[in-house]
Amino acid sequence: MKRAGTEHARMYDRLKGFRDFYPGEMRARREAMDAVEDAARRYGFREIGTPAMERAEMWTDKSGGDIVTELYDFEDQGGRHVTLTPELTPTVARMVVAKQQALSKPIKWYSTRDFWRYEEPQSGRNREFYQTNVDLFGSSEPEADAEVLATAADALTGLGLTGEDFEFRVSHRDVLGGVLNSFDADVQTRDAIRVVDKRAKLDHDDYVDRLARTGLSVAQAEAFDDVIASNDLEDLVAFADTERVTSAVKNLRAVLRATEDYGVREYVDVSLSTARGLDYYTGVVFECFDSTGEVGRSVFGGGRYDDLIESFGGQPTPAVGFATGYSTLPLLCQRAGVWPEEAVRTDYYVLQVGDVREEAAGVARALRERGHVVETDVSGRSFGSQMNYADSINADTVVIVGERDLEEGNVTVKDMASGDQTQVPLEAFPGDHDEPRYDDFE
Amino acid sequence: MKRAGTEHARMYDRLKGFRDFYPGEMRARREAMDAVEDAARRYGFREIGTPAMERAEMWTDKSGGDIVTELYDFEDQGGRHVTLTPELTPTVARMVVAKQQALSKPIKWYSTRDFWRYEEPQSGRNREFYQTNVDLFGSSEPEADAEVLATAADALTGLGLTGEDFEFRVSHRDVLGGVLNSFDADVQTRDAIRVVDKRAKLDHDDYVDRLARTGLSVAQAEAFDDVIASNDLEDLVAFADTERVTSAVKNLRAVLRATEDYGVREYVDVSLSTARGLDYYTGVVFECFDSTGEVGRSVFGGGRYDDLIESFGGQPTPAVGFATGYSTLPLLCQRAGVWPEEAVRTDYYVLQVGDVREEAAGVARALRERGHVVETDVSGRSFGSQMNYADSINADTVVIVGERDLEEGNVTVKDMASGDQTQVPLEAFPGDHDEPRYDDFE
Repeated sequence: MKRAGTEHARMYDRLKGFRDFYPGEMRARREAMDAVEDAARRYGFREIGTPAMERAEMWTDKSGGDIVTELYDFEDQGGRHVTLTPELTPTVARMVVAKQQALSKPIKWYSTRDFWRYEEPQSGRNREFYQTNVDLFGSSEPEADAEVLATAADALTGLGLTGEDFEFRVSHRDVLGGVLNSFDADVQTRDAIRVVDKRAKLDHDDYVDRLARTGLSVAQAEAFDDVIASNDLEDLVAFADTERVTSAVKNLRAVLRATEDYGVREYVDVSLSTARGLDYYTGVVFECFDSTGEVGRSVFGGGRYDDLIESFGGQPTPAVGFATGYSTLPLLCQRAGVWPEEAVRTDYYVLQVGDVREEAAGVARALRERGHVVETDVSGRSFGSQMNYADSINADTVVIVGERDLEEGNVTVKDMASGDQTQVPLEAFPGDHDEPRYDDFE
Repeated sequence: MKRAGTEHARMYDRLKGFRDFYPGEMRARREAMDAVEDAARRYGFREIGTPAMERAEMWTDKSGGDIVTELYDFEDQGGRHVTLTPELTPTVARMVVAKQQALSKPIKWYSTRDFWRYEEPQSGRNREFYQTNVDLFGSSEPEADAEVLATAADALTGLGLTGEDFEFRVSHRDVLGGVLNSFDADVQTRDAIRVVDKRAKLDHDDYVDRLARTGLSVAQAEAFDDVIASNDLEDLVAFADTERVTSAVKNLRAVLRATEDYGVREYVDVSLSTARGLDYYTGVVFECFDSTGEVGRSVFGGGRYDDLIESFGGQPTPAVGFATGYSTLPLLCQRAGVWPEEAVRTDYYVLQVGDVREEAAGVARALRERGHVVETDVSGRSFGSQMNYADSINADTVVIVGERDLEEGNVTVKDMASGDQTQVPLEAFPGDHDEPRYDDFE
């Protein structure tokens, strides 16, 4: 039989902007993902599973900004224009619409998966990136916004972060839109909000110039920036003097009030220049930042998108949610010193000396039945080689099963941290112990 | 501001062969995935994270069979010929090669994710499908094959299946290849093995005809089928009478022997017509089947692929692994009556009557801090509407926080299964209780 190995060997490289996660790093990431998912789970958000691919029109029809030019879209074998999903929101909107009558409200969903955008890779940004999305459909009350903010805050404190480490900068789309419209009914509001979203990245003149190109005069752009930079809600209401802005500010204040009930007010700051890049947001929007500023980019964000379900052909259904990404979040956790250790852990290594396969397999099996992580030799290796391997996988305890010991009915239990070891009767290991360690036999 | 909802609404359909998983079904699937991953974890396999996309050449260069015509491949914006990954094995081979010097052997990895093949969807087969892949690199010993079989068996028994429910049909690529070559050195072995892989799906004449087209005479094809159908290893060695077949049978027997040590021999049957479709397999191969035959298709499979790492430009590195899929596995579990219930679960619903947001939020927060799944009203709804919702999410306990009760300092704790309820002082709920239930206060 002709074998693959006898043909021309070829090395393949990973695609640019895609990541391989080896076990040590993956364990830390899984611990972080578990913490975020656990917060969502405790608030009654339910896991869903979603496709990696959708019709490209779900983005090209409605989304604005860079996302459309960054799609991994192509024609499938059936001639459909499809795309890898660059974000989750349109997919969950489609899922809500598909079963709207059957689903009891509020609908509270979460999921963790990868998404794809053809961007230029840099630190904290890859073409394939992972998010936990958390969304709540069916309530327009401020308590829904507050519950989403509280879930996000609990996710971060669950990772070990504190109020010293992060802040949620909260704004309101109708405040921004309302103030813009108070200048001039013909301003291109969406374009202007996208400019606001880039405010921190642009120098002031460039920023004002871009704002002016959306329909404001330069003087109006300066005045607009002054009023949103002040973050003073009273000033804002007086300045705009429109029902829309007054109402939006009232809603924003009600959300802030509700975050007190939820015990997370301390993490929330009003920041009107926080805009979010996507067009579908309608009410409160927020972004999470490193309080120290050391991690310069937004860690993650979210907000309210009350019109999206209707635009997908569903009944009018208010919605609010957020997505934590796992590209910037590790940078914040590392800065704060709470990122989990990037190393594998092993409860037991069962070391074999001589022809003891049956007994060693029995010990390993008994320990696994108690739920432990257990490895044993599958390569017929020497004592020293097995001990090095046990060390490389951070084994807590090594159980040495040797021919000579077994003649006396014993095995040796070695604590790897201290190096201490002792002989134990095979019949007592693990015996009645749930988690037998060196200390149990000394 | 122009809003999405005021534009033309449009419904989007899910792509054919792609699935949405709503919370009830997802919960059952997650429980199944957790059981499989937990088995892998206990054997010391470590989670890795892998890209959804790779260079298409990783399949078009080497893989055989249908997989190449079923790729979701396309040219990315940078002009690369890329593909969604139709399986994991080439990716893990690439990852092993990339860090071969740094990784201590054996390398033991698992991961759960989705894969994509453009196949015709049918029951138990979708274009997007989910697998847990489990692979061991760096040992050619029979114990490595046995450990992989034991991990697969523990995954299934962890789901509640027994030896009455499933069987592993085990064969050996060198047995098949060696017997084929004992007829005629010019037989197209790979093509012949792909025909054997389809044996159960073809009628006998068609099967023999296809075998004959790989270089055998019809008489040889019949003789070949007789000897593999017998599953008699003695006969086989005598029939072929070559060093290669003798050696392969010896290896297969050693693996069977090692499965005894691992306590899983009872699940394993020799079945020489089990071939596996992919070219890269080299030694022991196996497929899991429903013992009752009710689920007709293979549930999942795996095997040894000792030459793949070298063909990817690495040092010669033996390898063995399997992948459980989550399309056919639920059919087996449902047939056996062990598929998890497809419904969400909720520990507490905190029902609000009147203006009690602060107190209700406090109760909910205290219960969440104890790790429970807790929902409360975020929509300002009526008593009856909240109670219906609590019922729809299968709440175990409803805590009624009402204005009038609160005047006396009380809340009401209602057990949803029995309908029994009792008043409890707010300060005692949850108080010192980790998991306060109606029974604790009666």
